[in-house]
Amino acid sequence: MSTKTEEFPAIQPGASLIIAWQIKNKRALVVGGGAVAAGRLSALLNANALVTLVAPSSNLSPEVASRIADVSLTTPSSEGATPSLTYIDRVFAGESDLEGMEMVLTAIDEIGLSSRICEMCRTRRIPVNVADVPPECDFYFGSIVRRGPLQIMVSTGGKGPRIANRVRRAIEGTLPDRVGDAIESVGTLRSELRKVANGKDKATIERRMDWMVRVCDKWSLAELAEMDERMRQEVLDGWEDNVAKGYWDVNAGVLGKAASALGLGKCPARDSPDGKASRCPFVLTSSGFLLGLTAGVVATAAVMRRWN
Amino acid sequence: MSTKTEEFPAIQPGASLIIAWQIKNKRALVVGGGAVAAGRLSALLNANALVTLVAPSSNLSPEVASRIADVSLTTPSSEGATPSLTYIDRVFAGESDLEGMEMVLTAIDEIGLSSRICEMCRTRRIPVNVADVPPECDFYFGSIVRRGPLQIMVSTGGKGPRIANRVRRAIEGTLPDRVGDAIESVGTLRSELRKVANGKDKATIERRMDWMVRVCDKWSLAELAEMDERMRQEVLDGWEDNVAKGYWDVNAGVLGKAASALGLGKCPARDSPDGKASRCPFVLTSSGFLLGLTAGVVATAAVMRRWN
Repeated sequence: MSTKTEEFPAIQPGASLIIAWQIKNKRALVVGGGAVAAGRLSALLNANALVTLVAPSSNLSPEVASRIADVSLTTPSSEGATPSLTYIDRVFAGESDLEGMEMVLTAIDEIGLSSRICEMCRTRRIPVNVADVPPECDFYFGSIVRRGPLQIMVSTGGKGPRIANRVRRAIEGTLPDRVGDAIESVGTLRSELRKVANGKDKATIERRMDWMVRVCDKWSLAELAEMDERMRQEVLDGWEDNVAKGYWDVNAGVLGKAASALGLGKCPARDSPDGKASRCPFVLTSSGFLLGLTAGVVATAAVMRRWN
Repeated sequence: MSTKTEEFPAIQPGASLIIAWQIKNKRALVVGGGAVAAGRLSALLNANALVTLVAPSSNLSPEVASRIADVSLTTPSSEGATPSLTYIDRVFAGESDLEGMEMVLTAIDEIGLSSRICEMCRTRRIPVNVADVPPECDFYFGSIVRRGPLQIMVSTGGKGPRIANRVRRAIEGTLPDRVGDAIESVGTLRSELRKVANGKDKATIERRMDWMVRVCDKWSLAELAEMDERMRQEVLDGWEDNVAKGYWDVNAGVLGKAASALGLGKCPARDSPDGKASRCPFVLTSSGFLLGLTAGVVATAAVMRRWN
């Protein structure tokens, strides 16, 4: 039985358990108003949390001050899922500040007070993060890339935060500019498909999933981001005959054909539909080849003409 | 004051709060033994958790069975920070199974039982995830790339799991093969530097940080991964004179010079030290140009010779 172990990826200890915590519409407390607190505050508000920030107004970073001044955040909304910020202008007051909180983040200079807050949270089993004090953190933050619905977190488990930032920048440079729009496009296509093919039987569900997969795999992320109402309709027209149309199937105009002929969109070296055509080795090398060929012909012709 | 808001990135609601949960040396319960449970189990063991898995042995996926059969996981270790797996061959027994648990993950088909487990966990404020039932999840899992100490999580907040996988694969294709080794190299260099320059005064700490940053920024991730004992020593030799040596400074042999002359490592188009030289537009285009130039010269010479 122990030979079976070889079939599966080996356990590689030393990782973190990276998770997407559900803080939407839940109350979270930020203690402190400096630069670190500003980052915590953004992360919580982006995740639609109901944030209370406790810090003396004499001690606010410009970013925290600007969030507090932002009426779209501080005016209570009757709609659900709207992030909100309640500001309390004083130092942390004790246990009463933890009432109803589902998460607590402290970013203050007073180490003793931080430790006491951490202890109170742990007694109440409220997840807590004390900035810069790892043993007092139930969780850490990492370097995040955000593109609309897409989030990418880069973590080195604290071993190389600067490298984490470099990896983050490298990823940012690699992502198609509108990858967030690509994800929104897929979402819209899926919901439109459900209107066209609304069967709830197993066969229809499976055919829908299969068709969506085949369509998505024919489009690069950059192409998906460009999918507008017209293209979506043409793609959906393929459903009846179970045809999965790609980007060039619905954009076969003159420009499309020219681009296609130049090799954009069908670079043989790309191993995924998501290579950037402008960085495609085939396109680059062949452009270089044509340029060099021309230069060679012109130069040699000129030189040989002089010789003769 | 409201104009100040413009200076800072706008809040973009709709994100998740992605965090690295500290489960190392803490007890976690997995209920279920199928394919989903296998994924949960790996994630927890990779994060050095002390896992208890409860599931009837009649119902185990091959992967879960292989983990249970792996003595390196199931033999208690006296060293700390070693992941461990305790297997209990039965169905979930009730509240007593939650005793001492810091996290609970269920992946079973019984929806009613899952809901009851979720409720018990929430009463006890134990973070819980019920597979496939979002309202019963305090947190979600995402698509993860792992390279040693580096972890990258891709999340679309459930909007496009297939796109998340494509983004993950695109990232995998972009990362230098040995980026994990690069992070380890930086860690080793930093600890060696602390031996050479062990001052604890503010000036020394700042000079160390500044020097580390300057050195790191001179090395691509691929180059850092290659940094061996000899290179590290030569780099450390630069500390006294406050010189930050790059990869080519410590590898200026014949091969190094040849590679340097070919433009590898100093492609003018790369905007970061982490471009892959083999994919550098400058290198590709200029190789193509040279190839084309040669072909042009040879072809034109041949044709013109025939004409004459």
